Amino acid sequence: MTSVPMLQFALDFITLPPAIAVAAQTAPHVDIFEIGTPLCKAAGLDAIRGVREVCPDNLILADFKTPDVGGLEAKMAFDAGADMMTVIGGAPMATVESALKTANEYGKEVLMELTGVRDIIARATEWRQVGIEWMVYHRGWDEEASNRQWSQDDLATIQRLIDMGFKVTVTGGLTNESIPFFQNIPVTALIAGRAIHAAKDPVASAMEIRSTIARLWGSP
Amino acid sequence: MTSVPMLQFALDFITLPPAIAVAAQTAPHVDIFEIGTPLCKAAGLDAIRGVREVCPDNLILADFKTPDVGGLEAKMAFDAGADMMTVIGGAPMATVESALKTANEYGKEVLMELTGVRDIIARATEWRQVGIEWMVYHRGWDEEASNRQWSQDDLATIQRLIDMGFKVTVTGGLTNESIPFFQNIPVTALIAGRAIHAAKDPVASAMEIRSTIARLWGSP
Repeated sequence: MTSVPMLQFALDFITLPPAIAVAAQTAPHVDIFEIGTPLCKAAGLDAIRGVREVCPDNLILADFKTPDVGGLEAKMAFDAGADMMTVIGGAPMATVESALKTANEYGKEVLMELTGVRDIIARATEWRQVGIEWMVYHRGWDEEASNRQWSQDDLATIQRLIDMGFKVTVTGGLTNESIPFFQNIPVTALIAGRAIHAAKDPVASAMEIRSTIARLWGSP
Repeated sequence: MTSVPMLQFALDFITLPPAIAVAAQTAPHVDIFEIGTPLCKAAGLDAIRGVREVCPDNLILADFKTPDVGGLEAKMAFDAGADMMTVIGGAPMATVESALKTANEYGKEVLMELTGVRDIIARATEWRQVGIEWMVYHRGWDEEASNRQWSQDDLATIQRLIDMGFKVTVTGGLTNESIPFFQNIPVTALIAGRAIHAAKDPVASAMEIRSTIARLWGSP
């Protein structure tokens, strides 16, 4: 694992064609495509299959935020072509373990999605014990709309999770301008959605963000 | 609202055709069709649209277990033909409020799904304040697989939620044999999945369960 964070592009659409179109365009400039939760519910597994078909060389994360039936939803995501899937922090531990078991069989990854989790560090200790290695640190859409800003507390929590041994990906309205806020922290991936797909030129935006990440985190 | 609980049939499939087929067959004997969470992620909004098309007279619940972007996911579900959708208990309060706002605009319902919630009564008080009226009391698949049984504690919690003013629906491996366990409690709906769709004769099974409910809860 390089110390330069990967760029994850969140395909936050509610129909499939624009997601496929922008994924195909930006593929060379993105490490991970995220099939956003609403897109999963709008287009079903065709969303994963479609992006996999036009972007054979990228990682794909199915942002299922699975709350139950962990093994089954993991199998659905991986069979459709995803490399990673998410479980929601509020899921019962039996669901986390069931998703992890399936991921281990496939040699793929389960990420724990922290949306709505109030006691992150206490829960993180439990998740570490059952084998979770990745965390998605998330400022949710609705929290963002209600004006929750990134803070030093967020940075401290992310650093603490990394110190505990987790790979941490960070998401929530990130832009080329807000990414430097995280520059002193060895995150594993930074996630941008609207900053790319709502840009006049999504390809230029992806290239710019990736270049910012390389400049801030790369070796001198 | 009659005092006889409604029968909700959970369409727990991961492809759409068998769900449509069994929904069409059983429609006269079921009050609410639930589009199960994995089916939502497998088939997308076509699952809701498809069941709506063949079952125009039933209520449809989209079991989205929405964790974020509450208003958007509620709009997706209602536009596709659902009457009710679920938000997951672990969702941030901003997500709950956003889904409720959209539901109120449509004159439809948001149900709070309790999978994974550890402090149900404390959270219920918060949810009541923002306007949640329905709760889904859920023994999850993975908890069931790890041998969590229905208990007197479950009954006490369900009764307490009803005393707080909630309409409560109950789900988790219910069968014609296990439904009498809840007979002293005025629940709003009882949810069966496999007990119907895995039966040799799903129509006969739905009729039998509904008749059991009428016998146990109906007026003498």
